[in-house]
Amino acid sequence: MSAQKPSIPRGTRDFGPAVVARRNYIFGIIRRTFEKFGYAPLETPTLENLSVLTGKYGEEGDQLLFKVLNSGDFAKEVTSEDLAAENRSKRILPKVAEKGLRYDLTVPFARYVVMNRNTLVFPFKRYQIQPVWRADRPQRGRYREFYQCDADVVGTDSLLCEAEIVLMMSEVLTQLGLTEHTIKINHRRVLGAFYQALGGEGTEVDLFTAIDKLDKIGREGVEKELVGRGFSADATERLFDLLSVGGDFAEKLERLLAAFVTAGVEPDNAEGYKGLQDLKRVYDYLVSFGFDKFENLEFDVTLARGLSYYTGCIFEIKINNVNMGSVSGGGRYDNLTGAFGLPGVSGVGFSFGVDRLYDCLDELNLFPPDAATTTRCLVANFDAESEAAVLPVLRQLREAGIPSELFPEAGKLKKQFQYADQKGIPYVLLQGSEERAAGQFKLKNLGTGTERALSLAEVLTELVK
Amino acid sequence: MSAQKPSIPRGTRDFGPAVVARRNYIFGIIRRTFEKFGYAPLETPTLENLSVLTGKYGEEGDQLLFKVLNSGDFAKEVTSEDLAAENRSKRILPKVAEKGLRYDLTVPFARYVVMNRNTLVFPFKRYQIQPVWRADRPQRGRYREFYQCDADVVGTDSLLCEAEIVLMMSEVLTQLGLTEHTIKINHRRVLGAFYQALGGEGTEVDLFTAIDKLDKIGREGVEKELVGRGFSADATERLFDLLSVGGDFAEKLERLLAAFVTAGVEPDNAEGYKGLQDLKRVYDYLVSFGFDKFENLEFDVTLARGLSYYTGCIFEIKINNVNMGSVSGGGRYDNLTGAFGLPGVSGVGFSFGVDRLYDCLDELNLFPPDAATTTRCLVANFDAESEAAVLPVLRQLREAGIPSELFPEAGKLKKQFQYADQKGIPYVLLQGSEERAAGQFKLKNLGTGTERALSLAEVLTELVK
Repeated sequence: MSAQKPSIPRGTRDFGPAVVARRNYIFGIIRRTFEKFGYAPLETPTLENLSVLTGKYGEEGDQLLFKVLNSGDFAKEVTSEDLAAENRSKRILPKVAEKGLRYDLTVPFARYVVMNRNTLVFPFKRYQIQPVWRADRPQRGRYREFYQCDADVVGTDSLLCEAEIVLMMSEVLTQLGLTEHTIKINHRRVLGAFYQALGGEGTEVDLFTAIDKLDKIGREGVEKELVGRGFSADATERLFDLLSVGGDFAEKLERLLAAFVTAGVEPDNAEGYKGLQDLKRVYDYLVSFGFDKFENLEFDVTLARGLSYYTGCIFEIKINNVNMGSVSGGGRYDNLTGAFGLPGVSGVGFSFGVDRLYDCLDELNLFPPDAATTTRCLVANFDAESEAAVLPVLRQLREAGIPSELFPEAGKLKKQFQYADQKGIPYVLLQGSEERAAGQFKLKNLGTGTERALSLAEVLTELVK
Repeated sequence: MSAQKPSIPRGTRDFGPAVVARRNYIFGIIRRTFEKFGYAPLETPTLENLSVLTGKYGEEGDQLLFKVLNSGDFAKEVTSEDLAAENRSKRILPKVAEKGLRYDLTVPFARYVVMNRNTLVFPFKRYQIQPVWRADRPQRGRYREFYQCDADVVGTDSLLCEAEIVLMMSEVLTQLGLTEHTIKINHRRVLGAFYQALGGEGTEVDLFTAIDKLDKIGREGVEKELVGRGFSADATERLFDLLSVGGDFAEKLERLLAAFVTAGVEPDNAEGYKGLQDLKRVYDYLVSFGFDKFENLEFDVTLARGLSYYTGCIFEIKINNVNMGSVSGGGRYDNLTGAFGLPGVSGVGFSFGVDRLYDCLDELNLFPPDAATTTRCLVANFDAESEAAVLPVLRQLREAGIPSELFPEAGKLKKQFQYADQKGIPYVLLQGSEERAAGQFKLKNLGTGTERALSLAEVLTELVK
């Protein structure tokens, strides 16, 4: 057999040591923040039954599910009629595949809640950091295997949860050094009131879809799309009056309330006004918390979050000094588990996109230097005698919690320094026969190039820093 | 559509918060130990090309690979001849699936080394903690999706690496509290010398296979199997003379050397004696390191590690006070990357089985109590007024690094205490109107049942402990 040239599937990635360390730096900050707010970790299997996954992500989502072939004689039930049919793959699929790969973290979470409804303690606050798979066309920044970091709480409709989501978002971004960010918040019912204010033309879905594109296609594009979908020019004019309400969070709340009244949103439209009330409540919670970054929080009435299942507050984060889509999003939903036979479970959650956060940190040079390496000290290997002498030293370095390694072969120091350099190890510890006689060491800092003669105690003090 | 009752595939598991926290406790100890010894993290994709996976795990392994259906019209190249063939599934497979799920961490590691041979720094020390998938028949303790924790170093044949594997194994087990363990070590060339000592009857493979079963089928069983495979009764007798050599590590080395000479292993059989020399070298390294747990290290001449690709030292760990197979194993291999066109890359590595470690810790009650929870303090929610008052307190708890949560709804304290209890939260902080007036708090320790009146500063001091 001739040796093959190996490769990995399109849209997948190997993460080498430096990248894993940096990704773990991001995961660590997200995880600790989730846990600090009382969210507990959940992990679900990579393999889910296709009966659980199918029909949950729309028709396009079903196409993008990775399906796993049944084991053994998987094709045994395929018939020649199947083969002759025009939609042969569609007909054959249920006969050859029962399982698929996790497509997001929300559906497995809903399944978990339903399967464990009798033992779970509600409100149930869980976070989940795991990869998901989508058979999407790979392109720059879009992968077939990527991580999601979700936090959700179900079983309560307290708006404290929404306020804490803003706090968690703010904390993660601040800790990552992404200070130039905007946390956008809106409410689906505010958008619903807009629809009513337009006089009931067109459909709500068309309105939301059009507003969602405002960023991309601008006012003119949105107007054109709305008119094309049966909205009058007059209605779209009124829409933009509403969308252009200005001021800070509290001012916008007041002005929109006034605008709703003017626009004829009926006072008994509990739906319409509840959105504003909810947002006011979230705002008040944040004030009580002593939240001090209101300049980063924007009540963005144009935020629509597509056609997803959200029913209450919705969130999104933009990093302002990087050209990049949103790095996080979420919202409240009223019926997460309905598809699995458990109606009326309200919840709210959000998700970080770790690949985008990574790219932002990379572009802004925000990774701390020590996020990229694990070994702190390389002990040089002169010869067999020196090797035996430094082994107890290596032990003491490690016992002091300093990740350390001895170059495994005696030989040219140049090669050993190259090894340290390429692996990003900041210190090299040397003890030649001279130093050994003096009971001393040379500690070289590869960053600064400085080299000092030190006792072992001094070496430990220096490296523990 | 009627709501479905959801389930997960056989052989897979959901890990709820308590279990994830305990698993992370184990992963954390393993990860920190690997890093302390200079191993750097690598992550490879879940999806690998079937061309990379197939043929690497024997015919049985190929059967157990999970294959992923191609996207889109996957069946388009299947013909009626394929369907008519007796081995239809085998014929159809390459037409419908190009990718599979990672089966172990070794083959992807080899692929990674070959693909990055020009940029990697050798010796390359990597660890990898990721799930793998096998379409095995699920049974107690055997899953279709499970984690492996591997550490390997390639590009050096220094026996320092073997010595450090013993140190890492010992450190992980000690940190986990699994003090009653035996780290078994042997060398494939010692087994090779045994084969020579038997006079060249039968085959080496048959000999190793039989010795590997000694634990399970006993001396009589092994003798019977060997005689059935063409070994003489006399040879099997001599084998058991060798296998029963006693003494501590150093004594066994000496006695085996003598036995080899007696048994006629030729002095110029570099292969045969090199095994003993290697083990002596590992032993000497450990002495130089100041390794102080030789009572847990056994030179076990009956250790064979099946028919795998090992060529040098081999390792295995048994937990002595739990009835359980080995929790870790590994060894040196000479040709990891040969199948991918890069011959002569020697390396040594080992792997922990986290599911078995988990079961051992569980059975021996060795999980620390705080490994099972994440939230440390629940702040009780009396009413709207109290809620607003405790939000800044909640903030301070979190700023002090104390994972805390406010029960999101005002209401019955009984329900809130139940919540804390079921979630394993050790403390509940209460501030009713009386305490608020006095600027005090009540802190209840749910473990001991004690309740103390404290100032906020005292609460922080107590909870940071």
